[in-house]
Amino acid sequence: MKYTAPLTDLRFALYDVLDAPTQFAALMGDSAPDRDLIDAVLDEGAKFCEQVLTPLNAVGDAEGCTYDKATRSVKTPTGFADAYRQYRDGGWTGLTGPTAYGGQGLPETVGAAMKEMIESSNIAWGTYPLLSAGAIDALWHHGEDWQKDVFLTRLVDGSWTGTMCLTEPHCGSDLGLLKTRAEPVGDGSYKVYGTKIFITAGDNDFADNIAHLVLARLPDAPAGTRGISMFIVPKFAVARDGTVGERNPVFAGSIEHKMGLSGSATCVMNFDGAVGYLVGKENRGLNAMFTMMNSARLGVGIQGLGLIETSFQNAAAYARDRLQMRALSGVKRPDKPADPLTVHPDVRRMLLTQRAVAESGRLLCLYNGLQVDRVNLLTDPAERAAADALCGFLTPITKGLLTELAIECTSHGMQVLGGHGYIAEWGMEQLMRDSRITTIYEGTTQIQAIDLLGRKVLGLNGVGLNLFLAEIRGFLDAHEGRSSLVPFVGELRRLADEWQTATLEISLRAKSDAEEMGAAAVDYLFYSGYITLAYFWARSVEAVTRESFAGTARFREEKLALARFYFERILPRTQQHLATIRAGGSSLMQAPDSLFEAA
Amino acid sequence: MKYTAPLTDLRFALYDVLDAPTQFAALMGDSAPDRDLIDAVLDEGAKFCEQVLTPLNAVGDAEGCTYDKATRSVKTPTGFADAYRQYRDGGWTGLTGPTAYGGQGLPETVGAAMKEMIESSNIAWGTYPLLSAGAIDALWHHGEDWQKDVFLTRLVDGSWTGTMCLTEPHCGSDLGLLKTRAEPVGDGSYKVYGTKIFITAGDNDFADNIAHLVLARLPDAPAGTRGISMFIVPKFAVARDGTVGERNPVFAGSIEHKMGLSGSATCVMNFDGAVGYLVGKENRGLNAMFTMMNSARLGVGIQGLGLIETSFQNAAAYARDRLQMRALSGVKRPDKPADPLTVHPDVRRMLLTQRAVAESGRLLCLYNGLQVDRVNLLTDPAERAAADALCGFLTPITKGLLTELAIECTSHGMQVLGGHGYIAEWGMEQLMRDSRITTIYEGTTQIQAIDLLGRKVLGLNGVGLNLFLAEIRGFLDAHEGRSSLVPFVGELRRLADEWQTATLEISLRAKSDAEEMGAAAVDYLFYSGYITLAYFWARSVEAVTRESFAGTARFREEKLALARFYFERILPRTQQHLATIRAGGSSLMQAPDSLFEAA
Repeated sequence: MKYTAPLTDLRFALYDVLDAPTQFAALMGDSAPDRDLIDAVLDEGAKFCEQVLTPLNAVGDAEGCTYDKATRSVKTPTGFADAYRQYRDGGWTGLTGPTAYGGQGLPETVGAAMKEMIESSNIAWGTYPLLSAGAIDALWHHGEDWQKDVFLTRLVDGSWTGTMCLTEPHCGSDLGLLKTRAEPVGDGSYKVYGTKIFITAGDNDFADNIAHLVLARLPDAPAGTRGISMFIVPKFAVARDGTVGERNPVFAGSIEHKMGLSGSATCVMNFDGAVGYLVGKENRGLNAMFTMMNSARLGVGIQGLGLIETSFQNAAAYARDRLQMRALSGVKRPDKPADPLTVHPDVRRMLLTQRAVAESGRLLCLYNGLQVDRVNLLTDPAERAAADALCGFLTPITKGLLTELAIECTSHGMQVLGGHGYIAEWGMEQLMRDSRITTIYEGTTQIQAIDLLGRKVLGLNGVGLNLFLAEIRGFLDAHEGRSSLVPFVGELRRLADEWQTATLEISLRAKSDAEEMGAAAVDYLFYSGYITLAYFWARSVEAVTRESFAGTARFREEKLALARFYFERILPRTQQHLATIRAGGSSLMQAPDSLFEAA
Repeated sequence: MKYTAPLTDLRFALYDVLDAPTQFAALMGDSAPDRDLIDAVLDEGAKFCEQVLTPLNAVGDAEGCTYDKATRSVKTPTGFADAYRQYRDGGWTGLTGPTAYGGQGLPETVGAAMKEMIESSNIAWGTYPLLSAGAIDALWHHGEDWQKDVFLTRLVDGSWTGTMCLTEPHCGSDLGLLKTRAEPVGDGSYKVYGTKIFITAGDNDFADNIAHLVLARLPDAPAGTRGISMFIVPKFAVARDGTVGERNPVFAGSIEHKMGLSGSATCVMNFDGAVGYLVGKENRGLNAMFTMMNSARLGVGIQGLGLIETSFQNAAAYARDRLQMRALSGVKRPDKPADPLTVHPDVRRMLLTQRAVAESGRLLCLYNGLQVDRVNLLTDPAERAAADALCGFLTPITKGLLTELAIECTSHGMQVLGGHGYIAEWGMEQLMRDSRITTIYEGTTQIQAIDLLGRKVLGLNGVGLNLFLAEIRGFLDAHEGRSSLVPFVGELRRLADEWQTATLEISLRAKSDAEEMGAAAVDYLFYSGYITLAYFWARSVEAVTRESFAGTARFREEKLALARFYFERILPRTQQHLATIRAGGSSLMQAPDSLFEAA
């Protein structure tokens, strides 16, 4: 498997379409990174990902993590620890971390660009820093000062890593059922007892210490989700002054044998009275988790994007070289025994689908990253609330759509290679196996869909949707006259109106029957997602057809062709999803339950 | 992973919907199997599949096949050889084999029902008899009498197995490029030289001998597909009198490490002057392969069906037991800490999708099997030609649609289990990995689509399509008045008309631009497939609402609910495919080729 970071397109997205440096300047003033700095980050990041992480991707899959029963510890695949050391030495662990604790304080948007390159290179390796980033986020927003001094500093400098311990054997999506308990010791610390499962990066062999963020119940906590608190439980005991002590009784009990993501240790974690500290307020642990949810879910959406890009690059390279059959319209390469796969319409369709989704998905991720930055940095409460609404609205779309499309697109990548795609040798099947977790963890597609439709749209009176629709319409109004946009504005305007109408229809139905929301949610997520990507295609066309556009004619032609392909061949998927939404939920809910029993 | 053969539904399909025994009687007269015999076959087959094959499915995946370099031979997973012995002892290898050579001569339709149970239980194990069946088919139609006496008898009694050796390193879909050569020895035999890859069941440790059917070129054969001949090359040399001699120089050189199907040996086969015999006429090897293509492709479609059924059964069982969150419309199980997953609309959608596809897919496979029988058994040339046209039309739909839906549906099965679906323990991820090969081998989905639209519909003036449309319309005319069918007949009639119109549109476009066929083909396959399944849903409704229907009220209600679900929530997919077909191919073909190059 090969990977070349798509730097030209990342720059196009950040500078030409999103004008990110201007936005950073407005948010951060003098501390905002300029284009030179961002370019340097992208160039160095690309080198690291291409040269260090990419070669380890197949190794990580073949070896997997191993679990040593004697020491109850995890050994990561050959090279993973060394790659982490290089990552740490390069200062990458603190790229977006708070400057007060040693971080570089760069925007999440820039972090998102770096994340894409990591996920394209080696998603399994990427889970270790990804989980640390979640822990940084949680402590930054909710930690006490001493916790920040002690833990945040080490997470930012990368000497320690972090995890998020939520799932238990009997509760995944439904955290209200969790049983792990925390008992106050009397000195302000707690002893944590319980078993967590599916803990990504739960143990590793390269960090000096691991900060586990654990959801648990205090004694006498209310039942359900209102009785959950968050604790920080280190692998090695840590005193308030930062002194590191004995091994804390929190151990990986085993690791899972999974379909993919083999280089990432998915651990059962046993807490046998491990000492930890409360983070944030008692019984408010779930709210603390919600704080970091936008960036964590965006992170998984970026995993989807990264996998699509890599699958595309490798499938395209194969299709250019592989000679098989002649073009339907006649021989294209008379000098060869057959034409390359790229002459065949459906091979082109699969490759164009991958590329069209990757490029508009890239814009979606970076735009979503910008909204995370706005939520973090805006000071005006009203502006901040609006940014939060838009960010909260887009995040389940980014996560849900790009991970579902990652399964589809990595499958296309395999299909282009035919039998060669199904064997391990070419790496294409690993990408598909790795992709399959992304629609499950950090909230399944079903959870994203309910978050989008139930919470963000119907629950909040559509604030985020309306902001986004206003932005789309503003864009259309501003550029309607431009001839290059003519093939796109009409359809996009129609879809914006239809989106609003469809939402209203669901809202009315859901008022009389709550199940209607759940029955429409997943189709609504896809429907919304495809329109969202169409908007970013329109923006790309706008950007390449500006008089001031400095890119090549080839680049412009490619964008116009992809936009056209997307509108003609992908966007019609909205029709199916709308039809299914409009069919309502009664065929689901009225079907007899005996259908789910043995015949 | 558990599996219970869906005997009630298999009987419903065979007897109530398809009235198969009557059709067998018309085709076979006194030798036709009656209902008692078919029932006995199904019951015994179910026992074997449930008790012998199902428990070996996870074993086969975990162990895989192993290759011994010293002996250049394959060891199959623990239990596979013993299961084969039991299968052979039970007489299953000759179930549909010709009676003249020791077979039971049962219709392919009955064989298809047995195949479904095998594929549901253990698709990897099933590849060994599946490939033998292909060899039986080829020899039966094209072998000389002595070849039938010697080889067919042993393939039918199962002491020998068979393979099909087509693919080479540089040619998969494009067999015209193949290089393996056969040199006449002078005594009527040939020495075969060359390397074949991706040879399913290429070697095993339980058959006394293996009959490899090999495509190769004779000296001075014309280039391309018109210069390919078929040879039978045994693992151990076989004389014309049946004497088995020395080890023939045809060896497995290695086996592939694949995404799934690990219990099936996918071999590189090296032919180093291995002695073989010509089967059929010189340079007509591809035609001989085409003869067995209908049943081989139907066999792979049945693999898709089998995987969907098993994934459904296990996902449904999990969803019934797993308690997670409360229903949106209020608590359903106040006695439990949470409601079962089956209360959630989108879990229901995924399970109903699996079941609705499995049940209509079952009818499609059995109906397609009936057409194979009609092609084999009809004596009137005109009737036989019509059956051949219908069978040839339906086969790529069965293969293409059910394998693509197997990937989707096994993925749904995983998703229902969430994180538990992604780990090996529950077996759900194996089903998805196993399913992924089915859209590739025996002709990719793209090849099926071109076979359907290019060859069977446009190439043959739509004979098969028109026969099938006439059948659908005949059904609608006959039952239009029945109130139970009212929700379905209007839409089905509309779609039949639309299908015809859409075909005409493509035909006109393809006349001026050959690429239009290729650009529409895959969408056309899906479009056609969804309408085909809708027809079988309508037939199921007709069957359960007959006055004479002897099944339970529960069974009837379930069918009605599934039919409604299919029409409301799956059939709208035709809209997207039609819109994409109508968009035409220019966005694919005019996109610059530079899009497939590195940026």
